[in-house]
Amino acid sequence: MQPTHAILNNDPAAAWLGIEVEQAEYGTARISMTLRPEMLNGFGIAHGGMIFTLADTAFAMACNRPDGEADTITVASGCDIDFVSPGRSGERLTATALVRHHHGRSGLYDITVTGEDGRVIAEMRGRSRTINRPQPGNYSASFSA
Amino acid sequence: MQPTHAILNNDPAAAWLGIEVEQAEYGTARISMTLRPEMLNGFGIAHGGMIFTLADTAFAMACNRPDGEADTITVASGCDIDFVSPGRSGERLTATALVRHHHGRSGLYDITVTGEDGRVIAEMRGRSRTINRPQPGNYSASFSA
Amino acid sequence: MQPTHAILNNDPAAAWLGIEVEQAEYGTARISMTLRPEMLNGFGIAHGGMIFTLADTAFAMACNRPDGEADTITVASGCDIDFVSPGRSGERLTATALVRHHHGRSGLYDITVTGEDGRVIAEMRGRSRTINRPQPGNYSASFSA
Amino acid sequence: MQPTHAILNNDPAAAWLGIEVEQAEYGTARISMTLRPEMLNGFGIAHGGMIFTLADTAFAMACNRPDGEADTITVASGCDIDFVSPGRSGERLTATALVRHHHGRSGLYDITVTGEDGRVIAEMRGRSRTINRPQPGNYSASFSA
Repeated sequence: MQPTHAILNNDPAAAWLGIEVEQAEYGTARISMTLRPEMLNGFGIAHGGMIFTLADTAFAMACNRPDGEADTITVASGCDIDFVSPGRSGERLTATALVRHHHGRSGLYDITVTGEDGRVIAEMRGRSRTINRPQPGNYSASFSA
Repeated sequence: MQPTHAILNNDPAAAWLGIEVEQAEYGTARISMTLRPEMLNGFGIAHGGMIFTLADTAFAMACNRPDGEADTITVASGCDIDFVSPGRSGERLTATALVRHHHGRSGLYDITVTGEDGRVIAEMRGRSRTINRPQPGNYSASFSA
Repeated sequence: MQPTHAILNNDPAAAWLGIEVEQAEYGTARISMTLRPEMLNGFGIAHGGMIFTLADTAFAMACNRPDGEADTITVASGCDIDFVSPGRSGERLTATALVRHHHGRSGLYDITVTGEDGRVIAEMRGRSRTINRPQPGNYSASFSA
Repeated sequence: MQPTHAILNNDPAAAWLGIEVEQAEYGTARISMTLRPEMLNGFGIAHGGMIFTLADTAFAMACNRPDGEADTITVASGCDIDFVSPGRSGERLTATALVRHHHGRSGLYDITVTGEDGRVIAEMRGRSRTINRPQPGNYSASFSA
C-alpha cells in the first residue's frame, strides 16, 4: 500500500507537480516526481524553483505528522539550498528529507534531491518553526511569531 | 512598451506561473505573478516552492543580460531564503532582484518578495556562478565547475 | 566623541579583538579592527572565524539598543556568510551592519566586511531572535524558544 | 598518539583558541576547546564568533589532507550556521566535521558543535572551494575564482 501524508490531502501545488510518496514518517519522508517540459527553464534544464518545490514538499512532510493529528503546524521559516547538478527533461527526481534535530519550536532538516543515476542534484538545509494552526481566513501571522 | 528578457523567451516554468516583467536590466529585475489555487499548499497559503520560483526567476533575470548576448550563462549555485509572511490565494506577488556584487565568476544578489500591501513575504540571498553556455544535450557539467 | 554600545561594556571577546566603534545606532553599526598575527590561519590569511566574529559583533550591536535599556535581548539565531576575498595580516577591516527588516521577534540584517582598499571581504546575512533577558546563571534556554 | 593536521602546524588563531585535535582524516575531523572568559560576549555566554571559529577550523581540517600533501588548498567559500543553545563559561565544546559530498572543485560539509552534556550548540553547513595554493605575498585572488 502506498504511504500517504495528511498535508498532501489538499495540496494543489503537489498535485500539479505529480508528486508520488515513497515514504512518510514523522521525521522523514521520501518523494519523487518526473521533470515535465513545463518544469524547465530557458536553458532547457530543471528550473531551480521546481527542484526547490520538490525538496520543500519533502521537508514539510517530515516536519508534520502523516496522520495530521496536531493542534500546531510546522512550516519552513527558511531554507538554504545548493544546486549541484542540473536536472534533465524527463528525468525522475527523488527528494529525501530527514530531521537533524529539534529544539523547542524550531528544527533543522536535511533534504537531498537525487537524479535517476543517483547523482546529487541539490542539497537543502531547512529551518522549521512550529506555530498554532491558522484559522480559516486568518493568514496574517508571521511564520516566526 | 513592456520590458522583456531573453531567458524568458523559452521558459515553460515562467510561462506556467504567469510571470509578468516590470523591469529588466543587467543587474536588476522586477517581476510579478498572481497566486492561483494550484500554487497553494495544504495549509491554504502560498507554497514555499512557488514563492521561491518567483524569486529565483527574478534572480536569474538580474544575473544575465536581457538581450541574451553572451558566451556564458550565469546560474544559481545556491540560495538562502527566509519566509516572513504567508502569501494569500489571489494575491499578486512582486519579486525584486538586485546585484549586491560580483567577484570573478561568482556573484551575490538580494531578492525581496512583497505582497499587494507591500509587506515582505520572503527575503532571498542568491549565489550565482558564471559558466560556459551548455551545448544542447550536454547537461552533465556541475553548476560550480 | 567616540560612539559606544552597551553590549561592548563587558565583552571580553570584542576587547581581545581590539574592536573600535565608528557608529552605533539602533538598527545599524560600523566597527573596525586590525588583523593581528594571532587572527591568521595556516594559509597566512585572516581566519574565517575572525572575519565572522567581527561581522557578528556588528550584527549584535545593530540588533540591540546602544543604551542597553530593554527587558529583552536580541541574539543571532543564525547567519549565512560568503567569503569573497582574503584579509591580509596587518590590514584594517571594517564591518557595517544594517537592519533589513523586523517581523515580530525575528529580524534580518545585512553585514558587509570590507578591507582597507574598500574591496569586499565577506557578506553576511544575519537572522535575529528577540528573547527575554537571561537571568544570571540560567543559560539553559534555547536561542529560538 | 594524538592525531595532527598540517593546517594547524602554523595556525596562530587555532593555537590561541587552545584547540585540541581528537580525530583528523581526509573528509572528517573532530576537535575540542574550552570556553575561556575572553571567548564570551556581553551576555556572559559564548560569543557566536568563537563557536563559529571552532566549527570553521574543524571544517578546514576535514577539507584538506592531514599530511598537507597537495598542490591545491580547499577553503571555505561560505557557511550557514544555526545557533541552537548557548555555550557556558568553562565548558568544553566539541566540533565534528563530515564531508557531505564533493562535486568538481566544490564541496559541502556538515559541522556540529556540541557541549559537555552532548546537547547541540550549533549546526553549520560549509561550502568549500578548491583553489591553487596561494604564493607567499599574493593573496589577491578571490576565494571563488
